Amino acid sequence: MNDFTLHPRLAADTFFVADGPLSRVLLMNDARYAWLVLVPRVPNAIELFDLSAAERGLLTEEVAGAAGTLKHLSGAAKINVGALGNLVPQLHIHIVARSPGDPAWPGPVWGHSAGVPYAPDARDALLAKLINAR
Amino acid sequence: MNDFTLHPRLAADTFFVADGPLSRVLLMNDARYAWLVLVPRVPNAIELFDLSAAERGLLTEEVAGAAGTLKHLSGAAKINVGALGNLVPQLHIHIVARSPGDPAWPGPVWGHSAGVPYAPDARDALLAKLINAR
Repeated sequence: MNDFTLHPRLAADTFFVADGPLSRVLLMNDARYAWLVLVPRVPNAIELFDLSAAERGLLTEEVAGAAGTLKHLSGAAKINVGALGNLVPQLHIHIVARSPGDPAWPGPVWGHSAGVPYAPDARDALLAKLINAR
Repeated sequence: MNDFTLHPRLAADTFFVADGPLSRVLLMNDARYAWLVLVPRVPNAIELFDLSAAERGLLTEEVAGAAGTLKHLSGAAKINVGALGNLVPQLHIHIVARSPGDPAWPGPVWGHSAGVPYAPDARDALLAKLINAR
């Protein structure tokens, strides 16, 4: 137990999927992309170098696992991974399934356009798949 | 020794800095940002999950080290890390020093606008700093 608190912007934009060994796994509320966000449950972490080497090792395996899950579930052409944090400083890693023809292809999804919220049934179906794939 | 070959687009857009334990370290030829690119010297790697766990561990420490170096040298507000590969499939990780007022702030640099090539003396001065900071 620690004093980790999810940034309110991340909380507003996502749905809870699971807690991994280090990170909270979130589904971005944008039905156009299969898009996960991993947030290390480490208070005050902003940059990768704010984590310990052991924490980075856990995070890297969580990111690779989430990328593999998204690739498998979505059949996407490419997985994009990004840690930007220009607007939300709390360290968080985006993992996004991308394919030719998606709205932002081949550019990045970040800052491209407003998200399209999930319908509740589509959201719940994807959450179930993500939880079962872990 | 292996049959690693740098993708020609990465070779054209960057300058060689050094070879780390796993990755080739490159400086992006865009004088507007302090911007490194790390390319694991692993043939046919496209996604993070194409690397072994040991390779991912090396890569993660190289990325965190490069991020710390850029933060220290540039005094940037935030380091952006991204692995996209929508156009260049060879696995490569961008590490970019960002600050309010830079051309793409607060959006991502990728796909934002054409790079501004370095003047040779500025390039060589930064390369020397990067090599000495390792």
